[in-house]
Amino acid sequence: MITRAKTAKSSLWGSAALVLGLIASPAIAEDKPATHADKPDASYQASMTTLGALDMEIPGLKPEDPILTPEQFSEGKTIYFERCAGCHGVLRKGATGKPLTTDITRERGYDALNAFITYGSPAGMPNWGSSGQLTEAQVDVMAKYLLLEPPTPPEWGMKDMKESWKVLVEPDKRPTAQENDWDLENLMSVTLRDSGEVALIDGNSYEIRRIIKTGYAVHISRMSKSGRYLFVIGRDGVVNMIDLWMKEPDSVAVIRAGLEARSVETSKFEGFEDKYAIAGSYWPPQYVIMDGNTLEPLKIVSTRGNIYDDQEYHPEPRVASILASHYKPEFIVNVKETGKILMVDYSDLKNLKTTEIEAERFLHDGGLDSTHRYFMVAANARNKIAVVDTKEGKLTAVVDTGGATPHPGRGANFTHPVFGPVWATSHLGDESVALIGTDPEGHPDNAWKIVDTFNALGGGSLFIKTHPKSNHVYVDATLNPEAEISASVAVFNIDGMKADADPEFKTLPIGEWAGIADGQPRVVQPEFNKDGTEVWFSVWNAKDKESAIVVVDDKTLELKTVIKDKRLITPTGKFNVTNTRDDVY
Amino acid sequence: MITRAKTAKSSLWGSAALVLGLIASPAIAEDKPATHADKPDASYQASMTTLGALDMEIPGLKPEDPILTPEQFSEGKTIYFERCAGCHGVLRKGATGKPLTTDITRERGYDALNAFITYGSPAGMPNWGSSGQLTEAQVDVMAKYLLLEPPTPPEWGMKDMKESWKVLVEPDKRPTAQENDWDLENLMSVTLRDSGEVALIDGNSYEIRRIIKTGYAVHISRMSKSGRYLFVIGRDGVVNMIDLWMKEPDSVAVIRAGLEARSVETSKFEGFEDKYAIAGSYWPPQYVIMDGNTLEPLKIVSTRGNIYDDQEYHPEPRVASILASHYKPEFIVNVKETGKILMVDYSDLKNLKTTEIEAERFLHDGGLDSTHRYFMVAANARNKIAVVDTKEGKLTAVVDTGGATPHPGRGANFTHPVFGPVWATSHLGDESVALIGTDPEGHPDNAWKIVDTFNALGGGSLFIKTHPKSNHVYVDATLNPEAEISASVAVFNIDGMKADADPEFKTLPIGEWAGIADGQPRVVQPEFNKDGTEVWFSVWNAKDKESAIVVVDDKTLELKTVIKDKRLITPTGKFNVTNTRDDVY
Repeated sequence: MITRAKTAKSSLWGSAALVLGLIASPAIAEDKPATHADKPDASYQASMTTLGALDMEIPGLKPEDPILTPEQFSEGKTIYFERCAGCHGVLRKGATGKPLTTDITRERGYDALNAFITYGSPAGMPNWGSSGQLTEAQVDVMAKYLLLEPPTPPEWGMKDMKESWKVLVEPDKRPTAQENDWDLENLMSVTLRDSGEVALIDGNSYEIRRIIKTGYAVHISRMSKSGRYLFVIGRDGVVNMIDLWMKEPDSVAVIRAGLEARSVETSKFEGFEDKYAIAGSYWPPQYVIMDGNTLEPLKIVSTRGNIYDDQEYHPEPRVASILASHYKPEFIVNVKETGKILMVDYSDLKNLKTTEIEAERFLHDGGLDSTHRYFMVAANARNKIAVVDTKEGKLTAVVDTGGATPHPGRGANFTHPVFGPVWATSHLGDESVALIGTDPEGHPDNAWKIVDTFNALGGGSLFIKTHPKSNHVYVDATLNPEAEISASVAVFNIDGMKADADPEFKTLPIGEWAGIADGQPRVVQPEFNKDGTEVWFSVWNAKDKESAIVVVDDKTLELKTVIKDKRLITPTGKFNVTNTRDDVY
Repeated sequence: MITRAKTAKSSLWGSAALVLGLIASPAIAEDKPATHADKPDASYQASMTTLGALDMEIPGLKPEDPILTPEQFSEGKTIYFERCAGCHGVLRKGATGKPLTTDITRERGYDALNAFITYGSPAGMPNWGSSGQLTEAQVDVMAKYLLLEPPTPPEWGMKDMKESWKVLVEPDKRPTAQENDWDLENLMSVTLRDSGEVALIDGNSYEIRRIIKTGYAVHISRMSKSGRYLFVIGRDGVVNMIDLWMKEPDSVAVIRAGLEARSVETSKFEGFEDKYAIAGSYWPPQYVIMDGNTLEPLKIVSTRGNIYDDQEYHPEPRVASILASHYKPEFIVNVKETGKILMVDYSDLKNLKTTEIEAERFLHDGGLDSTHRYFMVAANARNKIAVVDTKEGKLTAVVDTGGATPHPGRGANFTHPVFGPVWATSHLGDESVALIGTDPEGHPDNAWKIVDTFNALGGGSLFIKTHPKSNHVYVDATLNPEAEISASVAVFNIDGMKADADPEFKTLPIGEWAGIADGQPRVVQPEFNKDGTEVWFSVWNAKDKESAIVVVDDKTLELKTVIKDKRLITPTGKFNVTNTRDDVY
C-alpha cells in the first residue's frame, strides 16, 4: 500500500471528467448474479433496449446544411444520445456540458467542431477521437450532425408507457414465500453496464447466482421496503422489477418509463411499503408513479417549468436522483436544470400534493443523513450541496463545498471525533473531500457548514462510502487521468480525524489486486456488505476486456477475494440489498 | 314583461356561441368611472395594449405554402389572436373550438377554410365573413394563414415581466387614509371592453366617477381583501392595480403578466390580506404570483403538463379562473386543457406547496358555495361541474349538469324551499338552469347532485346571479341569436320554487328599457349593489353605437334608472366592490 501523497490535480480536469457521458450519472446502477435471463419475452426486452428506438423526426434540411445520409443522421442521433446527451441535453441547451444549439455550432463551424470532438478540451470535453472511442468517420458525422437542428424527440405519455408495459409474472402467480435459499439480505445487485444486465451476487459466497437482462447501462438498483422486489432502470428508461422470492429470481414486470432516464425508487413510508414505484426521466422531462406490484403506470407528472432563480422557462428540466422519504409518504424528486427539489406526496395520487423547494441549479445525486431526516443533494455544476428537511418540507441550507463539482453518490455518514455527525462528499473536479455537519441539535454550530476539507487521492472521484459499523471512509478516483490513481482507493480512519490537521489516508491498489493484465481498468463505487465488514469495489475495464470485483476486509484493509467471471462485463454500481433498502451509507 | 315561454334552442347553437372569442371568457371584466386616465405614463400603457405586441416569429415558408406578405402575415397573426385563439388555442391544438393544426387545415384546403370563416358552421363557428366582422380580404388572409404552421409564440419569463412592470406611485407616496369621499363599498368597476378601460361608477348616484385606461378587453376586476386596491386584467395580460384611496383613484402599478390572459386575484386568508396578487395566462401557460402592494413579480409557475385523464403531454394548458380560498392561504387555479385544479399555497413561495386535483377537462369559470368552503367550476365542453373541498384540498364530486356547456360566471347561491342550499349555473349551449345541492351536512341526500333543472329564456346565457338578501335569481341570454331574447333577462322567485314543478319566470325587457335606437345591444351580466336591493345590467352594443347600464329595483323588478354616457363604450362585466371582495353571489 502506498501511504498517501496529496495530488493536486487541476480542478479544470475534474469538470472535464464529468463530460464522460457514460459515467457521470447521479448514482451508478446495480447488478445481480445469474445466467442470461432467457425467459421473459426476450425479443420484447431486446427491442426495448435498442437505443435506436429513440425515434426522433429528421428535421428538414436547409440549403446551407451539411449533407448526411439518413443512415448517418441515424448514427449521429444514436451517438449523440449515448455519448453527448447526458451532459449537453437532448435539446442541446447545455447543463454540465456547454450548449450546442445551432447558433453556436454554426458560428464555430465544422472544422472547429471536428477538432473539439477529436481532441477534447481542457474545459472538460473528452477526446473522443484521439482516444479511439469514436472513429474518424464517426467524428465527421458528429461534427456535421451538430450543425443541424436537433431533432425534436417525441413525447412519451401514458399510451406509450402502457404499450411498453408488461407484467411477465402476474402477482397471483408469484411465490407466497421465498422459494430459494439465497441470503437475500446480503445479496449484491451489480450493474453490467455495457451488456445491459445486472448480476445478482451472493454476498457470502461471492457466487454469481444469476444474470438478468435489463435496459442499457442500468443506472441504479433500488429495493422495495420489504426487501423482496428489486427495481433497476437503464439509461434507456427501461425499468425491470425483479422478484427475489422466485426460485430463480427474475423480472416479473417491465416498462419503458421514458426515453432517457436515470432514477427509480419505491415507497418506503409506513403503510405504503412496496405500494408504489417511481421513475424519473431525462427525456421527456417528467416522472411517473407506478404500481409497486406490477409497474402499471399510474400518474405522469411533467417537470417542465421555470428555473428557480432567473425564473425563465426551461424546456428540458431533467429528473436526476429520486429518494423515498422516511418521514412522510413522499418521494424526493430532484430536477436538474430548474434547481427544484420536489417533495411528492404519494398518499393521494388523485389530489397530488407537491412541495416545490427552490434549491440550486444542476441538482444531481445525494443522500440522507444518518437520522434520515435531512436530504443532501449536490448541485454539481454550482459546487454546492442543498440540504432539505424532509420532515418540514423546507430548504434548510445551501452549502458551498469549497471543491469543484461535488459527486457524493449517496454520500457517507459518520461521527467525526471532534465535529460530531457529518455527511461527506468527494468531488469530480478536484481531490477534495468535504464534511458537512448534520446534527443541528447536538452540534448546532457545525450544522450545515463545511466543518472540514481534506484531500484524497486525486480528482475524478465518483463515490465515497462508509458504514455505521465501519471505522473507515473510502474514496474512489475513478475518472482520474492517471492510471494508477484511477485504479486505487483512498481509505481514511474515522477515529484518527482531528480538528486541526488533515487526516492521513492509506491507498489500496485495488486494480493491482485484481490482477488484470489487459486494458486500463478503473476502480469504481465502494459498497459494503450487509454487516459492514467487507467492502466491494468494481474493477471496470473495457467491454471486450476482463473486469473484476475486488472484496476487501474492512477491519484489516487486506484483500479478501477477487470475483472474476467472463459474464462480469463492465461492472460498475453495486447495491447491497439491506444497505439499499434501509438507506445505510 | 313577457311571462315566460320555454324556448327550446338547439344545444348545437349554444356551443357555437362559445366560439365568439370576444365574449366566451370565464368571467367578464369590470369597469369603473371617470375621465380618460391621462396621467400615468400613457405611452407605456398604449404600447402594452397594442395587440401586435404579441411578437411571434414568422415561420419559414415551404414551397407549397401560400404566399402572404409580411404585412398580411402580421394581420393574420393579430386577427387570430383577437378572434380565434380564445377557442382554438395559440398553438391551434383546439379546446372549445376544433384543432386547426396544418395536418387538418391542409386537408380541408383553402376553399373550405374560406367558406367556414365566411359562413360559420352550425357546430359553433361564427360567420365572421357574412356578418361583416371580417372583410373578404381579411377572410382570404385568414384562410391562407391557417395553412401555414402556427408561429411559435415567445415565452414571457421574469425578465420580460420585470421590463413591463412599473410602479407608478410608490407605496410610501400613496395616501394613508381614503382621500376621496366616494362610497367605496358600493362602487362598481365596469369593463369597457373595446376601449381598453374600466369605468368606476358610484353605486348610489350612478355617476361615472372615473375612467381608467387598462389592458385590452378587461376580463375581470378583483378587490384586495381590504377593499382598497382594485386589480384588473386585460386579455393582453396587462394587469392594473388601482388605488381607490387616492383623491382621484388611478393605477399605482402595472405589469404585463403574460401575452394572453384571463384571470387575476388577490390573497384573502387571514394574515395575508392584500399581501399577494396572482395572474393566470393563456399564453405562456403559466401563472405569476406578485407582490400585492407593487405588482412586483415574485414567482412564475408553468402549467405545462399532462392531461388528467389520458395523461398525454399538453403544450398549452391555459389558466382559466383563479379564486382565493377563504379556508387556507391558497389560490385556486383552474387549468383548462389538463383539467387540473391547483390549490397553490402562498404562505411560503420558496417552498411552494401545491395540490394538483384531477377534475375534468376544459375548466373555465366558477365560484364558491355560500359557506365559501366548496368551489364549483364548470368543465364547460364536458357539460360538468367539478366540486372541490377547499378545506380538505380534495375533489368532492364531478356533476353532469344535464345541460350543454355550463357557464356559471361565479354562479348563484340561494336556499331552495325544498332542496336547501343550492348553487346554480346557466348554460351557453341551451336554455337550462341546473341547481346543485351544496349542504352535505344539512341535506346530505342532495349534496353534489343536480336537484332540479328548469328552463330560462333561451340558450346563450353567460351569467346567473342572486344575492343573499334577494328573493330573485336572474339569468341572462346574452348570446342568444334572437335579438329580443338576447336583450332580455329571466327572473325567478326563489320562495316559489317547488320540488315537482318547474318555476315560472318573468322576463325583463332590459334592452327595451335602455331605449337604444341603433344596433342590436345584448344584455349581459347582472350584478347586485352592495345592499342587494338593485341589479345592474350591461346593455352592450357595438363599439361605435350607444350602450347603457340598466338598473332594476330587485324588490319590484321595475326599472330604476338607465345610465348612459358617451364614454360607456361596450360595457360588459360589472363588479361591485363589496360583493367582489367578499365573494357574495
